[in-house]
Amino acid sequence: MKEKTVRISIAGFGHVGGGVAEIVRQKREEIARIHGINIKIVGIADLRGVIVDENGLSEDAILKLKREKRKRKGEEAEDIYVDTNTTGMTTLEMIREVEHEIMVEATPTNIVDGEPGLSHIITALESGRHVVTSNKGPMALESTRLIELAAKKGKELRFGSTVGGATPIISLIRENLAGNRIISVKGILNGTCNYILTRMTEEGLPYEHVLKEAQELGIAEADPSKDVSGIDTALKLVILANFVFGLNASYKDVEVVGIEEITLDALKLADDAGYVIKLIGAVDQEGDLSVRQRLVPKENPLNVGGTLNVATIRTDLAGDITIVGKGAGPIETASAVISDIISIG
Amino acid sequence: MKEKTVRISIAGFGHVGGGVAEIVRQKREEIARIHGINIKIVGIADLRGVIVDENGLSEDAILKLKREKRKRKGEEAEDIYVDTNTTGMTTLEMIREVEHEIMVEATPTNIVDGEPGLSHIITALESGRHVVTSNKGPMALESTRLIELAAKKGKELRFGSTVGGATPIISLIRENLAGNRIISVKGILNGTCNYILTRMTEEGLPYEHVLKEAQELGIAEADPSKDVSGIDTALKLVILANFVFGLNASYKDVEVVGIEEITLDALKLADDAGYVIKLIGAVDQEGDLSVRQRLVPKENPLNVGGTLNVATIRTDLAGDITIVGKGAGPIETASAVISDIISIG
Repeated sequence: MKEKTVRISIAGFGHVGGGVAEIVRQKREEIARIHGINIKIVGIADLRGVIVDENGLSEDAILKLKREKRKRKGEEAEDIYVDTNTTGMTTLEMIREVEHEIMVEATPTNIVDGEPGLSHIITALESGRHVVTSNKGPMALESTRLIELAAKKGKELRFGSTVGGATPIISLIRENLAGNRIISVKGILNGTCNYILTRMTEEGLPYEHVLKEAQELGIAEADPSKDVSGIDTALKLVILANFVFGLNASYKDVEVVGIEEITLDALKLADDAGYVIKLIGAVDQEGDLSVRQRLVPKENPLNVGGTLNVATIRTDLAGDITIVGKGAGPIETASAVISDIISIG
Repeated sequence: MKEKTVRISIAGFGHVGGGVAEIVRQKREEIARIHGINIKIVGIADLRGVIVDENGLSEDAILKLKREKRKRKGEEAEDIYVDTNTTGMTTLEMIREVEHEIMVEATPTNIVDGEPGLSHIITALESGRHVVTSNKGPMALESTRLIELAAKKGKELRFGSTVGGATPIISLIRENLAGNRIISVKGILNGTCNYILTRMTEEGLPYEHVLKEAQELGIAEADPSKDVSGIDTALKLVILANFVFGLNASYKDVEVVGIEEITLDALKLADDAGYVIKLIGAVDQEGDLSVRQRLVPKENPLNVGGTLNVATIRTDLAGDITIVGKGAGPIETASAVISDIISIG
């Protein structure tokens, strides 16, 4: 197979951005052999600054950045600015000025105005770069505008990892169901909520107890409100809905109910009748969007437990297709970013 | 979007071949609009003969063939040869001589020597046509040879509908998990077996009773031996295994146990322990192939009921990805053929 070099930059060097660099390090040769693509990381931008090498950053340089990052989180935070060998460029300058094909946007999700990810994505598309993003903010707030901009510039905008993490819900619809009309999509898009409801159901433990357990296990964040309120599900649902049905929705348009009020009594009643209660995000071809608790028959493929994510895609020809997988995790999410990079090719 | 004409021929005009023609008729404009591909059927070959129109067969001509076919199955079988306006070409002549881009192979599965499908596929590839096949025989007997021939000729060979029917197991692995190494695949690949085991488990009915019910419902064939013996699962498993792991296996290499001997006692014992019994086809990266009854924990995503098919793909980065859908049905299978046609583009 003829090998092609694909130069990427990474904006945001946290779990996902770092995971992308780590996978590229471990799998560079395998990816080149199987897919004919030689991925070269030519720039990484972080809060602390930007490192750049047009010939591809060395493993040492990338590892050093990781170590510096760890240091900064520890006690020697003050030292790192001295050690870090950054360029003095801003992130936007890196995106504009360093020659590369694909910009990977992996800064944290901001649901107020989508920044800084939104500006990163716009700048990359306007500079003639393809974009792969794991950042839900810009896509949940401005996906129509971004998809249109990408089309206008003739560039790819991929965001498979924003919905379902490692579970390829978006790319399944994009690649594998061609010829089908999608009638509706519904699913469990937040692993924290699924974990809490599964444990409450299976162990008969109250909400507060299980939430605390989930926080101790690192499954729920210290501030779990975005998850348990249903907002995170709504963000993903909007990204999915705009993609599948060409809507121009914002997550603020979604009717959202979370899981904070679910009682053990309700779970028990459902169980006796052959159901489980799940927090389901749903959208149909009429454009109705909702995030709320739903009764799911126990034998339905949507009934998956633990932290799993799942989506059922109803189609006119193939019937219902359900996909299940891990919804989160840094390496899992980074692997979805890598799949998107390879698919642009 | 710029439109591109893709001329196809169809060899075998039964449920699947007829379904493909029907979907093209209904969705020609939708497919052109969304995917930029104008599908034109320029030849159809059947046991009775071949119809051809290099400008695209008219809907009337195709419908007439369907009606003739129905007639032939009825009492007036003798008449049809008089009415049918065929060319006198053989199927192989149609494949070789009529200009087209993609040959759709949809003749019945023959597990002895793969014919006539095997010759159709070889002839098409050697004539410079891409191939989309729903026929398990050639792929379960000679997939390595066919994949190599396609590569040598620079043509695509797509066979997504041979495994899982409408459930895109093969294309999921091909398109969506790029960057992952596949560690193993296991699944329920035969809807008839799944239906029988599900009903036995849920209703406590014996094997013979449920088999008869399935035959009455059209879920099991009059001669169900290929399904219940596990051979159909083995055919699909081999196609999957050769594709995923580059094996050179034939279905005769697979250790196969069917479902004929499963007792209600065994199902009950499993149930009490929190398991269901399913007929699982499995392959791992060591190349071990097996089709046998396995205990599946009730909460595992592989536990799907009715006639559903399911596969869990274990990957090194994304973890386990499970896909569930309809494993059979003429329109469902035809829809997978259409997806393959569009993906060749």
